[in-house]
Amino acid sequence: LRGTLAHATSPSTIEVLRDALVVVTDGVITNIVQGADADALQSTLHDVTQLAEDSILLPGFVDTHVHPAQVTFAGSGTDRPLLGPTGWLECYTYPAERAWADPTVAAEVSGAVVRRALKHGCTTAVYFGTIHLEGTLKLVDACLEQGLRAVVGKVCMDRCSPADYVESTEASLSDMEAFVQATIAKAEVAHPNGPLVHPALTPRFIPTCSTALLAGLGEIARKYNGSDGGDGGSRANKVFVQSHIAQSADQLAFVEQLHPGQRDAALFDAAGLLTDRCVLAHAMHLDESELQLIARRKSALAFCPLSNVFHTEKPASTLDAPNAWRCGCNVGLATDTAGGYAPSMLHACRTAVIASRCLHKDTTVDWKYAFWLATRGGAAALSMPIGGFEVGNEFDAQLVDPSAGDPPEEAMALGVLEKYVNLGDDRNVAAVWVRGKQV
Amino acid sequence: LRGTLAHATSPSTIEVLRDALVVVTDGVITNIVQGADADALQSTLHDVTQLAEDSILLPGFVDTHVHPAQVTFAGSGTDRPLLGPTGWLECYTYPAERAWADPTVAAEVSGAVVRRALKHGCTTAVYFGTIHLEGTLKLVDACLEQGLRAVVGKVCMDRCSPADYVESTEASLSDMEAFVQATIAKAEVAHPNGPLVHPALTPRFIPTCSTALLAGLGEIARKYNGSDGGDGGSRANKVFVQSHIAQSADQLAFVEQLHPGQRDAALFDAAGLLTDRCVLAHAMHLDESELQLIARRKSALAFCPLSNVFHTEKPASTLDAPNAWRCGCNVGLATDTAGGYAPSMLHACRTAVIASRCLHKDTTVDWKYAFWLATRGGAAALSMPIGGFEVGNEFDAQLVDPSAGDPPEEAMALGVLEKYVNLGDDRNVAAVWVRGKQV
Repeated sequence: LRGTLAHATSPSTIEVLRDALVVVTDGVITNIVQGADADALQSTLHDVTQLAEDSILLPGFVDTHVHPAQVTFAGSGTDRPLLGPTGWLECYTYPAERAWADPTVAAEVSGAVVRRALKHGCTTAVYFGTIHLEGTLKLVDACLEQGLRAVVGKVCMDRCSPADYVESTEASLSDMEAFVQATIAKAEVAHPNGPLVHPALTPRFIPTCSTALLAGLGEIARKYNGSDGGDGGSRANKVFVQSHIAQSADQLAFVEQLHPGQRDAALFDAAGLLTDRCVLAHAMHLDESELQLIARRKSALAFCPLSNVFHTEKPASTLDAPNAWRCGCNVGLATDTAGGYAPSMLHACRTAVIASRCLHKDTTVDWKYAFWLATRGGAAALSMPIGGFEVGNEFDAQLVDPSAGDPPEEAMALGVLEKYVNLGDDRNVAAVWVRGKQV
Repeated sequence: LRGTLAHATSPSTIEVLRDALVVVTDGVITNIVQGADADALQSTLHDVTQLAEDSILLPGFVDTHVHPAQVTFAGSGTDRPLLGPTGWLECYTYPAERAWADPTVAAEVSGAVVRRALKHGCTTAVYFGTIHLEGTLKLVDACLEQGLRAVVGKVCMDRCSPADYVESTEASLSDMEAFVQATIAKAEVAHPNGPLVHPALTPRFIPTCSTALLAGLGEIARKYNGSDGGDGGSRANKVFVQSHIAQSADQLAFVEQLHPGQRDAALFDAAGLLTDRCVLAHAMHLDESELQLIARRKSALAFCPLSNVFHTEKPASTLDAPNAWRCGCNVGLATDTAGGYAPSMLHACRTAVIASRCLHKDTTVDWKYAFWLATRGGAAALSMPIGGFEVGNEFDAQLVDPSAGDPPEEAMALGVLEKYVNLGDDRNVAAVWVRGKQV
């Protein structure tokens, strides 16, 4: 492709490459040149797409935490607490997730969620499924069919859950391992040169998982990741871990009640779940020593600004992403649909900026920082070679058309990218590529 | 029209009227009936529009503070302070406003801004123009041509302003009075039965207006409002007042430097500008006694959650709307484009909720409260008979199509209005009426 590229090169720097020629071979960027060099190289190539003059090619967004089964009630129940008999989990989440006992429902909802992610310029998503093995495999199928890069987990929960939405410890572990094996097999068939979809061990959160379940999941992690060839995880199908951590005051109190004197991070670590492919969502109530533990283990955090605002005490708190980076943690951005109502990473960027301005005195997430989190941050959190345009990275990208959608032309004249981050929506996404393939 | 209507009846109550027949005569709601009564009445009427089954008719939004000349840079410069040589006013605002010295530019931008307001379901807007008499009259023309209900002001500023974007006190007052007369005349011609567009005296903010200018504006207010017939202001063309008040720490410091020991509210009051048709934007640094003064004068506040977050110190503050209501002030919601980047009142609703959760411990703006502010609050702030569906109110409405735009159908199944407020966009606005006329 030839045209204008832009990507984040640091939390405060956006690099714009005008009239750049990016060469993609087997999904990997093999060359990027500009100007006269581009003319010379282009004459040797036979298949070059010229991008529209005012359009701009960006890295695809990496959404590090999403609950596909919950989108059916997205936009509802934002005024409820997380826990308790009239809480959000009881009244909205569990009923929506139970519906995935029917694989047909799971397939239909999954198809719509994946379509919507791509439409919004998201090329990689980290998905929380439900406790259903077959239902969550439909989510894997939807990702593979539509070509979305994804980390997908079947949820594990063996206690402190509704009587009709819970597993035994044994069933949870055996279904989880079956899910890992099936996902690895499906991904291998779909992409023999390297998986696009990865399985994730997915304890819901500490309160709904017995110590035995957590320990069993830790064993699965060791078993499947022990013989990694060290190629960075892109081509090998490593098993990820995902969960929620330190999300709200009532969740912390619940953990204290179940595990007196202990906190989330130490409990995950004791089970062997803080791996270098672990993504923990929320994390706004971690202290500095917990952030440092997570950094030492090379685990990562998913910053969910919109849902953080709703599912905490009031005044709300959110993860201070710059501070977490300072402590050495990789942090990605996330929509957390439907804990947050908006499926768009643009909305997550905007909310991250607003929340930072409202809540954090000493650190600032501005629009550039948010864009960096939404691309580079997510790539780092998942240890994937994406998030920016460099030789050797896989080509996951979105083409932004500033003239589409709602913004009037004059509003887009200064700084297309800044306007897209602040004003754009899915109408501005003209095309999307994952590993070099338009999807 | 016959179909499903919804409107706010209190800050915490949304009333849904299913299968309702609303009768509109000369732009005014003359009857609303449901069920069998609707069938009986409908048989006597010859021109009834049946609304689509899943659509919902809402009051049009009232945007109580917008700067049309600034939309050209909307989405830019959110990381700058308000004042100072590299500040937002100097680098973005004044250059964009200077362009309205050319009435052709003013006409073009105004046309686009008014079109966009209507497209987003906004049926009433309070517009800050520029210092240009002719340019700002183009904004009046755009409102009249497209049928938007509006309050429009030519900006007044005679000091502490750039040398090439400032007026003399005399020119400011004479242009302001000429603007008032021209707007009243144009509005009278366009709508002989009662104006849809009203002029507003518009001191930019205290620092850019000399005491003589403020006092002169107060005299104009008395002159044009003295003989009001007391019909509530809908049919008489009262002269409004609008300005900014108590917007940021650096603005307060600037006022203290210019007027030692005095603050914004008292200065406006001394000039006679706190009238019952006065709308003051921002207002987040008013103390309780200032709120009470404004309430006694029956002046109102425009709550601008998005721009408040950007144009204050950090951590940000915003107006605590429930507290201001408790003090007796009418409060409307506002986009403040381009102090805020988003032209949509839906976005203002969402930001009001997020800011309230982040910043205010003792009061809460949830989605219902925000919707109430965006409709009833704005109507109360402007003393206009709009904002809800009652006999005697003028019919300003928007028809919401939940199946349009981005939200998948299943996401709209529970509570169309809540989903629209949280997830919708301009694609969901299927039709818009102002004073009974589809626009």
